[in-house]
Amino acid sequence: MTAPAPPLPRPTTAPPASASAARTLARCRSLVLPALTTAVERLHPYPGEMAAFSFGWCEVGGTPAAGRPGGGKGVRQALAVLGAEAAGEPGATAVAGAVAVELVHAFSLLHDDIMDGDETRRRRASVWKAYGTGPAVLAGDALFALAVQTLAESHGPHGGAAIRQLSGALGDLVRGQAEDLLFESRPWTGPDAVRTAEYRAMAEGKTGALLGCAAALGAQLAGAPEPVVTALDRAGRHVGVAFQAVDDLLGIWGDPRVTGKPVHGDLRRRKKTLPVLAALAADGSAARELAALLTDNLHADAPDAGPHDAAVHRAAELVEEAGGRAATLAEAHHHLDAARAQLASVPLAPAAAAELLALLPFLVDRAL
Amino acid sequence: MTAPAPPLPRPTTAPPASASAARTLARCRSLVLPALTTAVERLHPYPGEMAAFSFGWCEVGGTPAAGRPGGGKGVRQALAVLGAEAAGEPGATAVAGAVAVELVHAFSLLHDDIMDGDETRRRRASVWKAYGTGPAVLAGDALFALAVQTLAESHGPHGGAAIRQLSGALGDLVRGQAEDLLFESRPWTGPDAVRTAEYRAMAEGKTGALLGCAAALGAQLAGAPEPVVTALDRAGRHVGVAFQAVDDLLGIWGDPRVTGKPVHGDLRRRKKTLPVLAALAADGSAARELAALLTDNLHADAPDAGPHDAAVHRAAELVEEAGGRAATLAEAHHHLDAARAQLASVPLAPAAAAELLALLPFLVDRAL
Repeated sequence: MTAPAPPLPRPTTAPPASASAARTLARCRSLVLPALTTAVERLHPYPGEMAAFSFGWCEVGGTPAAGRPGGGKGVRQALAVLGAEAAGEPGATAVAGAVAVELVHAFSLLHDDIMDGDETRRRRASVWKAYGTGPAVLAGDALFALAVQTLAESHGPHGGAAIRQLSGALGDLVRGQAEDLLFESRPWTGPDAVRTAEYRAMAEGKTGALLGCAAALGAQLAGAPEPVVTALDRAGRHVGVAFQAVDDLLGIWGDPRVTGKPVHGDLRRRKKTLPVLAALAADGSAARELAALLTDNLHADAPDAGPHDAAVHRAAELVEEAGGRAATLAEAHHHLDAARAQLASVPLAPAAAAELLALLPFLVDRAL
Repeated sequence: MTAPAPPLPRPTTAPPASASAARTLARCRSLVLPALTTAVERLHPYPGEMAAFSFGWCEVGGTPAAGRPGGGKGVRQALAVLGAEAAGEPGATAVAGAVAVELVHAFSLLHDDIMDGDETRRRRASVWKAYGTGPAVLAGDALFALAVQTLAESHGPHGGAAIRQLSGALGDLVRGQAEDLLFESRPWTGPDAVRTAEYRAMAEGKTGALLGCAAALGAQLAGAPEPVVTALDRAGRHVGVAFQAVDDLLGIWGDPRVTGKPVHGDLRRRKKTLPVLAALAADGSAARELAALLTDNLHADAPDAGPHDAAVHRAAELVEEAGGRAATLAEAHHHLDAARAQLASVPLAPAAAAELLALLPFLVDRAL
């Protein structure tokens, strides 16, 4: 229980992308960006500017973003492209799907930031903070509608199946977000406490569904047989859970200079993350002390009241002592292995499969 | 310019539905309700409760709504059913489309109430007021995703075209809402003032797109030829503009006992509605006095500061004197006529066409 946890994968420095993963992301980005830009240009100028801001393409007011790479890593578009290539078709086959998953991802970030009250995103103001809540709701809706429209209009022979894939993932994504919202009001201990299995299901929906959908959609649009589509979907879902586990580790023990978040940030915010839930589920004195600390000392009626530094520091120690850190790291490794096993379970084009495998640890290892 | 305006269609009493329109709505409601209920039951229980609340099926907490009919009139589902019947197929052909448009309508009301800060909807608390903004954003997203999923899973031979129809309408709906939000910050007069043509385009997107889509979707799912689908879409869009025009009239001159809104409510809120815009676009002393009144006396920096009753009353007089009321009523009649002309322009099954025609004035004549 109190065995020293194995080290986090490079938790205190910015993890360098493997050269191969970085090449893959850059290649897929240049394949998809023209279509993504064209799609966003179809939006009404008002939500269009908010969308471009959220992609890091412009500042508030519409002036082009100066000298910053901007936006996310484009992980989902890369998974879509690689999904098509793994099914033996050119990556271009997947472009409409790649655009759709990037738009859905942007939509979900916009609306999640409203729900979670997050004022920053990728070291800039979040859209609701920069433009207001109502406009940010609208911009999210516009991105959502555009995602469906883009895929629906990509008349291929497999468009129907692709739309079903995307709409199923959208449903799972919303379910995951609903669970996450409800976790906040549940107790730390007792019969209504959040179980780690529930947490896993939430992470699979909130983070895994769209990653799985991205890869599956690429294969779908390339006409891959159903087992290949399913294996890619499952692989992406496992990656999502692994990502969430590592994200939770970084949320407690990550270097603020790397994560952009305060030390022990998730404990300060009393977030129900996997390390804490796993620690509480353990038996022993550390778990009991942690439960008492979370219930009493870290409790605050005012959501903004920051608990005392010492209590937060002690909670982090107790989570580690009760095995929460080790269990979470094990969980991440388990799901990465499961993702690899899914990829190995079906015949895939070797070059694309190798790129997918090289991408996996990179996906998990840093903020997407 | 100051000719007395023709009377509004029953502006001061609750307009009784024609017996025929009421029968049509009830018939379509019983055809669609089982599938709508089944769809909503697929939602996660949290957004599911908010969705059921928004349909008037339950109270906050989930207890069934007692003794109230609840929800809207089900106009969109009726248009979908009649669209299929007009194309010569049973209304059941359109059920997935009918469910989808009702879900999209519910989504748009939820999110619009957040954007507009409206605290009530159909004489109950709006969802954001009852459950909070974040949860209401989520519930809207869940309804949106479910709408797409429902239609995407309705494997028929025409599913692809139906999804394209719906996603196109979603895009137009968001554009209309974006315009409406932007109108708020535009001036009453001068080169940047909102022109009546812009207002019409906003209303067509915000209200007409989904009404048109509903009817077109029904025909689409029934395998109707493209000219029939297009004519039904256009008819619904005209109805949407007519509805918005009448809604604007009721927002100024409607009986508060019927509308549930304060006397001259839209003037108090300084809303840019068609009667005001048409009045301002007129030449003459009333238009000039109105412009001065709106710019000076009715202006308030604090959005909640209610302007003086006398000024509001005078503004309403001036709108009427400048011809804004008459122009808006003419606009409504023009678009109703245009909708009828669209229905007459293509071959439709006579019974369904008759029901559609009987429904038209009812759609326009009251809050949907």
